[in-house]
Amino acid sequence: MDYPLRTIQQDGDAVVVLDQTQLPGKTAFVRLTSLEDAAHAIRVMQVRGAPLIGATAAYGVALGLRDAADDARLSQVMATLAATRPTAVNLHWALARMQSVLAPLPASDRLAAAWSDARAVAAADERANAAIGNNGLPMLREIAARQGRVAVMTHCNAGWLATVAHGTAIAPIYAAHAAGIDIHVWVSETRPRNQGLLTAWELRQAGIPYTLIADNAAGLLMMQGQVDCVIVGADRIAANGDTANKIGTYLKALAAKAHGVPFYVAAPVSTIDFACADGTGIPIEERSADEFGVDDCPVANPAFDVTPAALIAGIVTEHDLRPAGELAGLVNFS
Amino acid sequence: MDYPLRTIQQDGDAVVVLDQTQLPGKTAFVRLTSLEDAAHAIRVMQVRGAPLIGATAAYGVALGLRDAADDARLSQVMATLAATRPTAVNLHWALARMQSVLAPLPASDRLAAAWSDARAVAAADERANAAIGNNGLPMLREIAARQGRVAVMTHCNAGWLATVAHGTAIAPIYAAHAAGIDIHVWVSETRPRNQGLLTAWELRQAGIPYTLIADNAAGLLMMQGQVDCVIVGADRIAANGDTANKIGTYLKALAAKAHGVPFYVAAPVSTIDFACADGTGIPIEERSADEFGVDDCPVANPAFDVTPAALIAGIVTEHDLRPAGELAGLVNFS
Repeated sequence: MDYPLRTIQQDGDAVVVLDQTQLPGKTAFVRLTSLEDAAHAIRVMQVRGAPLIGATAAYGVALGLRDAADDARLSQVMATLAATRPTAVNLHWALARMQSVLAPLPASDRLAAAWSDARAVAAADERANAAIGNNGLPMLREIAARQGRVAVMTHCNAGWLATVAHGTAIAPIYAAHAAGIDIHVWVSETRPRNQGLLTAWELRQAGIPYTLIADNAAGLLMMQGQVDCVIVGADRIAANGDTANKIGTYLKALAAKAHGVPFYVAAPVSTIDFACADGTGIPIEERSADEFGVDDCPVANPAFDVTPAALIAGIVTEHDLRPAGELAGLVNFS
Repeated sequence: MDYPLRTIQQDGDAVVVLDQTQLPGKTAFVRLTSLEDAAHAIRVMQVRGAPLIGATAAYGVALGLRDAADDARLSQVMATLAATRPTAVNLHWALARMQSVLAPLPASDRLAAAWSDARAVAAADERANAAIGNNGLPMLREIAARQGRVAVMTHCNAGWLATVAHGTAIAPIYAAHAAGIDIHVWVSETRPRNQGLLTAWELRQAGIPYTLIADNAAGLLMMQGQVDCVIVGADRIAANGDTANKIGTYLKALAAKAHGVPFYVAAPVSTIDFACADGTGIPIEERSADEFGVDDCPVANPAFDVTPAALIAGIVTEHDLRPAGELAGLVNFS
């Protein structure tokens, strides 16, 4: 699939990212030329979505090694990027991969290797997500075969904007649309950051029918039988299948369970944290009250919640679709 | 309890309402002098909340009879007000009550009787809600006795702003605060109209600690054990206890059930529709896409959802707190 825009790309010794804080109103790019630029882009969510955060961190290592690449600087770069956001494990996965490649090399070879491996991280994400689209397609095709059309609900944005390309939760939807399946998407607003508007923007560009709803409407729509399945992305999947994703995901999973609607998670294997036994070990980021745009009001703003594996019908990765409780077999691919 | 402001009051042959579309930013009043003014105030939500809609409709009948009060005009007035909003049954309850008082009277006596009965409807709502506060207090006192403090979650605004006085869901919270109980309230934003900001405004004025959250955060907070009980209002309660309330209520009820958190509904008996067997008979209002403030985007905007009686720990009315499945005994009070 040929996208009109790229979320991230190398440009010489800089990195250009699509500024998602300006979307959907304005298409603007930010040129990252330093470690600080990369860390800032992740922190303020100019880039967002677990896979894209991972790729940005990988490029951020290269930017951070431009002037010095000795062990002390490498440690500093890793620590700075690791501290940007706590929940998405792809960030730590990408940094660990870069560390394992770069640490054994002499300092003089590290900058070139960092650029090369960052490109490899990005390319791997693009390939993984294309495969997620293919692996998630049969579940949509099956529903369409049964009833002629498919109504999918998603949450937040797990489309191409959240990744290097293709998206995770939206990848099977793109694949279904490309395969001629009659598909409609319920897009929840996703307060407080309104990433649902990013998903709406993506789907509008792709010509895929969708309807925006308040996050609050998910339960009623499922009760009314207007949702055939739910597909969401993930920020971190524990070894037992418990899944951290954008705040509000858990409420959708509870409603789906109550109405027999299958609830799927789509994510690359880099989102699985095999070192984390279950969801209780996943740190939940608390973000600024400013995201609510209200004054003089005490606010709690947890950015993620954890959906227990028992509520998840299956997890779609670049390898296959499998039950949330059977992730162990994927450890060799991580 | 002495409120600094009144949501509705008669002023000669007019009715003055607090314009809730301006809150919490601005305290402004609207003077209603005609049937059309009253219908407009309900439709655009200058007044909102099932009990207050009922009281406004009652006063709207009086306004509608100012120039003529023959049978044809009475029918027209009733039909106009009945068509303003579909879900809150208090509207129809108030109109049926006015109709039964006014229809037998000669046309010449109807205007004075309409004003008199509208005042009686308003006074009855105030009394009922004060009693709801008292009847809901023991359940909060019991939690406080066990653990020293109470964390309540609510949804939308069911405080004094939603009623003639005292509120419904918030009435027990006011009563608990007045009784010296250490209480904290989780206030959900309530998209798309953000009535949670009205609740925050009320609680701030009353000096009751609260925290604003995204609607999406309810599941995580319950999973973390940060919620001791949920209290919401209602727009229509079916005879079997199924309860229509602001969209998103059902998701909170599902999460409460999943975590053993008691979920209470507080409403006057005028909110119970004994003619409606169960929730499937409750009409769900679809409101304008404009409430989302986005352009070029297909939107679905159902304003209410239905929480099954099985998820409700108890219903607090002006008579008592009782199981949702045992409402039949209240029919004589309706």
